[in-house]
Amino acid sequence: MPEIRQNLVTKDWVIIALERAKRPEDFKKRIKTKEVLPEYEKKCPFCPGNESAMAPEETLRIEKNGKWQVRIIPNKYPALSKAGERLRKVDGIKRRLSGVGLHEVVIETPLHNMTTALLPEKHLQCIIESYRQRYNEMAKDNRIEMIIIFKNHGEAAGTSLIHPHSQIVATPVVPTQVRERFINTQKYFDENLECVFCKILAEELKDGTRIVLETKHFVAFIPYAAMSPFHCWIYPRRHSSSFGDITDDEVTDLAVNLKLTLMKYYHGLNDPDFNFVIRSSPTDMKKLDFFHWYVSIVPRITKVAGFELGSGMFINSSLPENDARFLREVKI
Amino acid sequence: MPEIRQNLVTKDWVIIALERAKRPEDFKKRIKTKEVLPEYEKKCPFCPGNESAMAPEETLRIEKNGKWQVRIIPNKYPALSKAGERLRKVDGIKRRLSGVGLHEVVIETPLHNMTTALLPEKHLQCIIESYRQRYNEMAKDNRIEMIIIFKNHGEAAGTSLIHPHSQIVATPVVPTQVRERFINTQKYFDENLECVFCKILAEELKDGTRIVLETKHFVAFIPYAAMSPFHCWIYPRRHSSSFGDITDDEVTDLAVNLKLTLMKYYHGLNDPDFNFVIRSSPTDMKKLDFFHWYVSIVPRITKVAGFELGSGMFINSSLPENDARFLREVKI
Repeated sequence: MPEIRQNLVTKDWVIIALERAKRPEDFKKRIKTKEVLPEYEKKCPFCPGNESAMAPEETLRIEKNGKWQVRIIPNKYPALSKAGERLRKVDGIKRRLSGVGLHEVVIETPLHNMTTALLPEKHLQCIIESYRQRYNEMAKDNRIEMIIIFKNHGEAAGTSLIHPHSQIVATPVVPTQVRERFINTQKYFDENLECVFCKILAEELKDGTRIVLETKHFVAFIPYAAMSPFHCWIYPRRHSSSFGDITDDEVTDLAVNLKLTLMKYYHGLNDPDFNFVIRSSPTDMKKLDFFHWYVSIVPRITKVAGFELGSGMFINSSLPENDARFLREVKI
Repeated sequence: MPEIRQNLVTKDWVIIALERAKRPEDFKKRIKTKEVLPEYEKKCPFCPGNESAMAPEETLRIEKNGKWQVRIIPNKYPALSKAGERLRKVDGIKRRLSGVGLHEVVIETPLHNMTTALLPEKHLQCIIESYRQRYNEMAKDNRIEMIIIFKNHGEAAGTSLIHPHSQIVATPVVPTQVRERFINTQKYFDENLECVFCKILAEELKDGTRIVLETKHFVAFIPYAAMSPFHCWIYPRRHSSSFGDITDDEVTDLAVNLKLTLMKYYHGLNDPDFNFVIRSSPTDMKKLDFFHWYVSIVPRITKVAGFELGSGMFINSSLPENDARFLREVKI
C-alpha cells in the first residue's frame, strides 16, 4: 500500500508510490557518449580572457594570485530591471508591480569544463562567501524584499550555458508561496513554542534513517515527504532565519557539506541534472523564531506532469529512506 | 521594464520578463524527423486487439457499431491503491495517510497514431462524457476527497506511452494547494460578494486582448498572469464549482472548444508537448459560491528551473497578450 506523507513545513501531501517504486540505482543518469569539453571556450562569456569583450561589468570578484576565482556579473538578459522605482498598480483585476530588482550570475570557476561537485573545498568556500557578500549588499536596497540564490545544473534543470555558474535574483515582493509557508510555520511555533525546522532536524538526527551526512554545522538529509527521488535538504544546526547571517565558520563548513553531498550525487547517480536553492527569509524580516534558512537540492531525474501541475501534490516513486541509505553508502 | 503580475486566483506573482521576451513564433516546437507511427502497435497495451492479453479489466467503455471508441481501465502501476481503508497516523513529525484511492487511464481512441487535437468533435465529446461518468462514480466512494483529471502529451509533459490517453486520480485528501487557494477565493467572495472567476471572465471578455476563442458555453483565454508561455484557461460561462455538474449541452460545447483550442496549439506551435488538467472542487463540497471549475492547459515549451522551485514565482518570457493574438490568428 502506498503512503501519503505530509511535509511539515509546507503542509503539502506527497504520494510515496511504493508499487511503482524503483531501486535507487534505477535513477542513475544514462550517459550516452560524454562530450569532452575544453578548459577554455572562445565563445563562452564566462571564460577568462573573454571578460572585456563579453562581460565587462562585475559586482564582485574574488581573486587569488592576481587571477579571479569567482566573478559575479549582471545577467545579460535580466528577468528584472536594475533601474527604476518600485510602483504598485491596481486596475480592476489587473494588479501589477514594476519589474525592478537585481539579477546576477555567479561565475563559479574560471574552468569551462569543471563541475561544482569537483571543485576543491576552498574554492566552494569562495563561492559561498561571494553569495553572502552579494546577499548582504543587495539586502540594503530598499526596493528589495526577497533574495533567491539558486543553481541550474544540466539541461533538465533549465540551464543553457555549460560553464559552471549560479544565479541571484532579488525581487521587489515576497513570493506568495513564502508567505503561505510562514502562516504554517508561525502557527507551528505558536502551538509548540519551537521552530518546526529545529524540531525536524532534532527528530531526523534521532531517527537517523533519512540522514545523508553530517558536518560540524550542517546536516544533509532526505525529507520525510521528499517531493521527488533524492530531493535533499541541508539544514544549519544553529537556528537562524537569514542566510545573510551565516558566520565565517559556517561558510567554511557549508562548503564541506555541500561538496560532499554533491559528490555523492555525482558519483552515485552519474552527475544528474539538479537545481539547488538557498531558502532564506525576506530581507526586511530579521531574526524570526519560526523560520530557519536552508539549502534544498532537487535532482531533475523525473518529470513534473499533469497531476502535479493540477493538484500541487507530488508522486515520488522512490522511498526517502532508501535514497538516504543509497547516498550514505556512495564512496567518494 | 519588466512587469510583475498577480494571479488573482492563486495570488502568485509572475515576472513577465519583457527584456527576455521572445516572439510567439520562437516557441514553435522544432521537429527533427517526425516518426511515422502505425495505427496499430502489437506491443501497445491500449491498442484494440491487445485488451485481453494486456488490459482486460475496464471501468467504462463507450462503443459505436460494436467497437469501442473510448475505454477506461485501472492504471497498471497505480499511484494509489484501490483496496483498503483510509487511515490517518501521527507519529511525531511523521504524519501520514494510507495511500488509498483510484488511478485510471482513459484510452481516448483505438488509433495508436492519433492525437487528441485531430480527433473529430463527436469523439472528443465521448471522451469528456467518459470523464463525467467516472468523476461522478468515483465521487460516491466515501474515501475520496478530490478527483484530478489530466493529460500528459509528449515527453516533456511526462508521458511515456504514445497511444493517446489521459488519466484520472482520486485522492483521499484535499491537496493543500487547493485549500490555500480556497482561502483566497473565499476572501474575495466575502469582500466583493461575487466569484473571482466570474469576475475575471467578465473582465477578460470586456477587455478582449487575452481571449483565444469563445464558444456557446466556454471561453478560452490566456491568464493576465500566465505562468509560462501559452498557458491557457478554459472557463465555463455558467458558474459551477464542480466538473461533475457539467450539463449535456456543456459536454458537447466543451468538446468544440477544447478541440479548437488544441488545434490552434497543434498548428500554431507544431504539436507542442502539453499538460491539461480539469480543476474542480473537492467531491464533498457542493455548489460553492466562491469556486468555479475550469480547464488549465500548460504547454511544456520552457523549463521550470531553480528560481521557480525556490520561490514559487514564475518567469514568463512571453507577453500573454501576444500569445493570445498569435493563437487567435492561427488558421485551422
